[in-house]
Amino acid sequence: MSTERYKALGVSADKEDVHRAIRNLDQGLYPRAFCKVLPDWVAGDDDWVNLIHADTAGTKTSLAYLYWRETGDVGVWRNIAQDALVMNLDDLACVGCTRDIVVSSTIGRNRHLIPGEVVEAIIEGNAAFIESMRNSGIRIHAGGGETADVGDIVRSVDVGITAFARMPKSDLLVNAIKPGNAVVGFASAGKTAYENAYNSGIGSNGLTAARHDLLGKQYARIEESYAPQTSKDQVYTGPFALSDTVETAPYGLTVGQLLLSPTRTYLPVLQELLGSYRKYIHGIIHCTGGGQTKVLKFIGNVAVVKDALFDPPPVFQMLIRHSLCSPRELYQVYNMGHRMEMYVDDCAVEGICEMAARFSLEAKRIGYVEESAVPKVIVRSGLGEFEY
Amino acid sequence: MSTERYKALGVSADKEDVHRAIRNLDQGLYPRAFCKVLPDWVAGDDDWVNLIHADTAGTKTSLAYLYWRETGDVGVWRNIAQDALVMNLDDLACVGCTRDIVVSSTIGRNRHLIPGEVVEAIIEGNAAFIESMRNSGIRIHAGGGETADVGDIVRSVDVGITAFARMPKSDLLVNAIKPGNAVVGFASAGKTAYENAYNSGIGSNGLTAARHDLLGKQYARIEESYAPQTSKDQVYTGPFALSDTVETAPYGLTVGQLLLSPTRTYLPVLQELLGSYRKYIHGIIHCTGGGQTKVLKFIGNVAVVKDALFDPPPVFQMLIRHSLCSPRELYQVYNMGHRMEMYVDDCAVEGICEMAARFSLEAKRIGYVEESAVPKVIVRSGLGEFEY
Repeated sequence: MSTERYKALGVSADKEDVHRAIRNLDQGLYPRAFCKVLPDWVAGDDDWVNLIHADTAGTKTSLAYLYWRETGDVGVWRNIAQDALVMNLDDLACVGCTRDIVVSSTIGRNRHLIPGEVVEAIIEGNAAFIESMRNSGIRIHAGGGETADVGDIVRSVDVGITAFARMPKSDLLVNAIKPGNAVVGFASAGKTAYENAYNSGIGSNGLTAARHDLLGKQYARIEESYAPQTSKDQVYTGPFALSDTVETAPYGLTVGQLLLSPTRTYLPVLQELLGSYRKYIHGIIHCTGGGQTKVLKFIGNVAVVKDALFDPPPVFQMLIRHSLCSPRELYQVYNMGHRMEMYVDDCAVEGICEMAARFSLEAKRIGYVEESAVPKVIVRSGLGEFEY
Repeated sequence: MSTERYKALGVSADKEDVHRAIRNLDQGLYPRAFCKVLPDWVAGDDDWVNLIHADTAGTKTSLAYLYWRETGDVGVWRNIAQDALVMNLDDLACVGCTRDIVVSSTIGRNRHLIPGEVVEAIIEGNAAFIESMRNSGIRIHAGGGETADVGDIVRSVDVGITAFARMPKSDLLVNAIKPGNAVVGFASAGKTAYENAYNSGIGSNGLTAARHDLLGKQYARIEESYAPQTSKDQVYTGPFALSDTVETAPYGLTVGQLLLSPTRTYLPVLQELLGSYRKYIHGIIHCTGGGQTKVLKFIGNVAVVKDALFDPPPVFQMLIRHSLCSPRELYQVYNMGHRMEMYVDDCAVEGICEMAARFSLEAKRIGYVEESAVPKVIVRSGLGEFEY
């Protein structure tokens, strides 16, 4: 189960020690729900629930830092705000929550290196993304946040978002994934109708590995961009400079731009799908930490067979070629082509894919669920067959 | 206005560049309120408001890291959870919110250095503090959180909390500090009826400076405990080891223990005071970043004169003696004796202090408000008179 390259970089895809640390905590009202579901503590209505959810842009900020240092382009920080926001919003959407979400940011910076203009770009990016969602009918409310000068604990900058929402219990989607379900994957790459540029699909997971996998040793001189405890032979092992263009990259995008593509939100599409297909939907999984194996935490004794995955988009092709991760590990660290998946009745697959297409979002049946003696995920791909 | 020692350490007490970065953001319904007050986005009731608030334990985690490394005592991390929680809770109390607060944690760790047992201690500390508050009638609800492996951006560990609450508009306390108000300070040090040990009063602010001011050069070898960009002559400039005891420290506490004293909450007392003295209270200020000058952001053209401050408790006496901060700066970086202050009608001072005393919390009139052409704070103390 372990992911060796990732561990060598000081990251755990399965976070087994963290799960051990929280084993005694209350799991919320519905342990199989994608997010912890809480009683309506803030308004005391038995028919409603509360959600509070936290996530960060992770080490994608370290990549933004490199890019900003090398190019001077402060605009790269605006995307980091979207990364942190979407990591929360799209988790919440997995329980059926797509509206009236209140968010707050926490920025921890090393003031020696990160000036106010970077903080300003992050805060502006936050506001701009929220505004763009409003155009899609998604109401997100910015509640402010905290910026702390903590250079003694943060190398460059850390950007987190916490989101709170209150929703009717009747709208809740609790994963109840069962044999016979079809799995619909929603592409992580491409350009949806609500995006203004091509998205590489990388998202905000696996960026520690992706940065070291693809970028070259010349970046090792920027010591504040990685943990000094990481073995030197694991640091920046790739062939590329941030400014390199590669044949497989569309639109002449550089390696830096591909890796810094902001995490796509699926909210506009999911909101529509939940409105039209709710009764056919038995589970929604946001393929973040754990990648294509994320669903393992939300199933009983069934096997999720993924035998018709998307062809890995260009950024993942680069990772397949250059990563020190094993092929088996790639599917645990990266989303590899779809970052959102839905467990549905067969009859709804076509309609769901058509509705996604209206947003220029590619969707397709990527697998199915079958009976099994133990919970498992089976990936059958061009890279081989892997069981998790 | 600047605080030079603090800036040399990569920290800004007044965060002027951050304030510039957020100058265009919505200030909430009541700009003078201590926390941003939001419409009731989650339930849509015009008579209610929402609050969302974020803060962290700051670089106190770096001190906990040193202590844990030197002593092996993992219990020190439990207090860090309290630090992050109270930094939020006591801010919220300043707008009159003392109940039904939903909290979520975000822990970012360098997995090379921080094992699961540390994460477990932080999470247990979180639960234990919430439980202890329940015994005081304070309902806080734990909503879980996120632990991220981000060694490429975090040196050791960062611990943040975000809190959400919904309250009736009629209970809101919006600062309306005016000439003639008395200022009541509530001691940061001592042992209240709801604490189980002596509290040094240090809180969670100024810890970057306090650590470097008091601890000696032998800690410079632990490079993950501070920013490498900090000038070496500013790093660990003090005379002490963590395990040293000093004459002035009560109960034979070590320097490490004094500095790691968990941030005291004033919630049990404030809840009672708001119940009994609400109509006499015109402002509550949590003296966090900015220390005794914090109130500056919440006043109009008045002068807050602090001429009867508490004698600095032992930990602050040590800082007065050894800090590289100027005396003027000390009052901006540290709370120096009280971390919570209330602006009240004269007639209520005695009753308020008596009610605090029932919790074994020392409170006294520490100053007054007078007319002024510009907003200012005047500190008249044994260290001198300072105007901010």
